[in-house]
Amino acid sequence: MDISKYRVPFKKNLSLSDYPTDSNGKFKTREDAEKLLEKNIKRMAELQDKLYAHDKFALLLIFQAMDAAGKDGAIKNVMSGLNPQGTQVYSFKQPSAEELDHDFLWRINKSLPERGRIGIFNRSHYEEILVVRVHNYLQPEKLPDYVMNSKNIWKDRYRQFRDYERYLYENGVWTVKFFLHISKDEQKKRFMKRIEDPAKNWKFSSSDLKEREHWDEYQKVYAEALTETSTKFAPWYVIPSDKKWFGRTLISEIITKTLEKMDPVYPQMSEDKLKNLQLYKEQLETES
Amino acid sequence: MDISKYRVPFKKNLSLSDYPTDSNGKFKTREDAEKLLEKNIKRMAELQDKLYAHDKFALLLIFQAMDAAGKDGAIKNVMSGLNPQGTQVYSFKQPSAEELDHDFLWRINKSLPERGRIGIFNRSHYEEILVVRVHNYLQPEKLPDYVMNSKNIWKDRYRQFRDYERYLYENGVWTVKFFLHISKDEQKKRFMKRIEDPAKNWKFSSSDLKEREHWDEYQKVYAEALTETSTKFAPWYVIPSDKKWFGRTLISEIITKTLEKMDPVYPQMSEDKLKNLQLYKEQLETES
Repeated sequence: MDISKYRVPFKKNLSLSDYPTDSNGKFKTREDAEKLLEKNIKRMAELQDKLYAHDKFALLLIFQAMDAAGKDGAIKNVMSGLNPQGTQVYSFKQPSAEELDHDFLWRINKSLPERGRIGIFNRSHYEEILVVRVHNYLQPEKLPDYVMNSKNIWKDRYRQFRDYERYLYENGVWTVKFFLHISKDEQKKRFMKRIEDPAKNWKFSSSDLKEREHWDEYQKVYAEALTETSTKFAPWYVIPSDKKWFGRTLISEIITKTLEKMDPVYPQMSEDKLKNLQLYKEQLETES
Repeated sequence: MDISKYRVPFKKNLSLSDYPTDSNGKFKTREDAEKLLEKNIKRMAELQDKLYAHDKFALLLIFQAMDAAGKDGAIKNVMSGLNPQGTQVYSFKQPSAEELDHDFLWRINKSLPERGRIGIFNRSHYEEILVVRVHNYLQPEKLPDYVMNSKNIWKDRYRQFRDYERYLYENGVWTVKFFLHISKDEQKKRFMKRIEDPAKNWKFSSSDLKEREHWDEYQKVYAEALTETSTKFAPWYVIPSDKKWFGRTLISEIITKTLEKMDPVYPQMSEDKLKNLQLYKEQLETES
């Protein structure tokens, strides 16, 4: 499966309309895709085990999307085969008063995966250049005037994010970012379904409709944010998500390939240590 | 008092021997300096009060030095007039296992002062390019091979620190860094005094002597680190510290001037709010 075509190029003009929301990739049937997903989940679990033993890398997966694009479902379906001891999911909501009293990466940093682990961010610091930008939510961040009055505030944040994710890479934390891309029509369908389904209608609120009014603005702001921050240290992938099964398979493929590139290995035992292990074994065997 | 001559220029070749360890500045007597220190402490407390009310800036003060240069004493004597509610001191020791499981800024970030507060770091992330470099303590950091084998590891860290401190500035956190500069002779004198003083000998350990053996190397590594990371967002000052009274006065002057430049103000009350306050006052007065 060729993942490179879904990867966002750095600093190229980008329109999200150039990226399909509806795709089968090269799969002839849904079953074919789901077979690959199953295979990838097994492979991810193997690699996660090595990642944990190797204890040098961490993998940070960031999920961003419009409402109802399927972030929760993707996390559930793609990541469920992993060992929870090596997996940490954080959902970022509106920042607390304590969080607003700090720089906006403060809460992100606190939630970073430890070495050997896979961290999953359901929303992330990218909200700072998405929802905060669309709704002009800067006021609560209590920034000094020289920031509030700066014309470069968003460009500055792009740079800050790039620097931050590069620093993370240089400390062994690899970041991969997914934008789950759906059409406006598909969102409407899913909203309708949610409202009609008693097991799902709790998920719907009037604010979802209000956010939908800003659809075009979000698409524009996402496009800019994605291309400005899609670096070799922390690439963005646009995941066609109208067909959930395709999106999930693609995500699993990207994660698997990233882990393979990382190439974690079990710690190598020195000859001395191996000899010692033999001694311990003999000791256990002759235990009375 | 002219503080600019103690400020380290960015990316210029620097030798610490160009900076005096023993200085009176322009003070004729120690008493003159201490008068200014007293005045500055009062002014700092006033400005701290505004900083707290303004709630947009934070000030981060970093202290680094060779052993016995007087970090603890400077913090105690210069900062004791501040309101502890708005002041946070962190002493960074050898990193814990949990800390080593994260990137090295993880523990730094957790300890950043909140908006409106003054944070003091007794040692800091700079240990990562000082003691770690001199003693080659990289192994416990469990970094991937592409970092460990990089020839640019220290240059990369300088850049990481510059980026980080710039990001902090762009979020309202101003960093000022002090290197307390003493001569090798002065350190010897202070060690001797410590060993002889029953109230201070607990502070002395054999590792202090071992560190002293690396004196020249530390001076070299400090010089490079200082000039590579002394930016307009986070300047380094070399504080002549053979005479403690001079160093402390200079530090107080730098902090005061930085706070004045920040220019925190009490939140302005709108006319409506002022009217309301009048109403509340009347209500309180007529309370039966």
